[in-house]
Amino acid sequence: MRVLGVDPGLTRCGLGVVDGLPGRRVQLVAVGVATSAPTLDVDQRLLVIERRIEEWLEEHAPDTVAVERVFAQHNVRTVMGTAQVAGLAMVAAARRRIPVALHTPSEVKAAVTGSGRADKPQVQTMVARLLRLEAVPRPADAADALALAICHLWRPAGALGAPERPGSALTPAQRAWAAAEQAARR
Amino acid sequence: MRVLGVDPGLTRCGLGVVDGLPGRRVQLVAVGVATSAPTLDVDQRLLVIERRIEEWLEEHAPDTVAVERVFAQHNVRTVMGTAQVAGLAMVAAARRRIPVALHTPSEVKAAVTGSGRADKPQVQTMVARLLRLEAVPRPADAADALALAICHLWRPAGALGAPERPGSALTPAQRAWAAAEQAARR
Repeated sequence: MRVLGVDPGLTRCGLGVVDGLPGRRVQLVAVGVATSAPTLDVDQRLLVIERRIEEWLEEHAPDTVAVERVFAQHNVRTVMGTAQVAGLAMVAAARRRIPVALHTPSEVKAAVTGSGRADKPQVQTMVARLLRLEAVPRPADAADALALAICHLWRPAGALGAPERPGSALTPAQRAWAAAEQAARR
Repeated sequence: MRVLGVDPGLTRCGLGVVDGLPGRRVQLVAVGVATSAPTLDVDQRLLVIERRIEEWLEEHAPDTVAVERVFAQHNVRTVMGTAQVAGLAMVAAARRRIPVALHTPSEVKAAVTGSGRADKPQVQTMVARLLRLEAVPRPADAADALALAICHLWRPAGALGAPERPGSALTPAQRAWAAAEQAARR
């Protein structure tokens, strides 16, 4: 299964493609960022980012696109652009009939570190370790996109529906993931 | 000059096409709403709205697309969807090389009523009067889209750049418009 993770942003949009299966090794396919110049008008910036996302979808043909769920309480200065890029990524996938999944930052952190409260460097270190990379992918947006893809591959079975498995059948990371998800839904 | 006004929203996105020139009579071309079912996933809802916007662009070939500028302080429950639909409208226009203009709610109110603090019924009444309609367009989102288009046609010369004309050369409505715009930039 191949997942394209999208860490949405208007100045830098992280893109990361990972192959894997639930509970199995994950493999880096591609990582990068789509950027747009702040000197352009917003419509032109969105167009530039959309084209890059489309190129990635064409080139890597993911089975799923995992996008960070953006909240209104996010950084107010940049949240509009972030939400708009997230929307573009969702529609670009939907046009190609590729399923879209949204994951919260807490879910992503819990999936790769075991804690929904992990800090950014910890997430990035784990991304490099899980993908057996010699260095942490830069910029941070690129690493975050890979973390999103890994999160999607490793989400607990049934996490997006009603969880049927008893808590004791989950690994510590999966329990942390489920707790983070529940917290995000409250 | 033909303007498509877009009052962005995920449940109801107002669309209104108006022909006119600065300071001249405005003429209704088309008005309606694009809707998406709240039961669908967000990516599918965005796709439905995008397709309707594309149809309107194809059918009416506007010279400009005027979109309401969305602020993060907006209704927190719906602001993400609103921002995403605004982004889709901008990109759909940009793909066709149609210029995009963003106007704040205060600018729109000032343009059609002379006051940036006018209430919704007042704006809707003026939209009907200016377009010589027998009734106020329903739903409110449709009327708001028409108000956006009129606002764009009637914005004061230079309103989007540095205003060079002395205040006294402006009509009362234009002065209110300029004041609302300045307030929005603060």
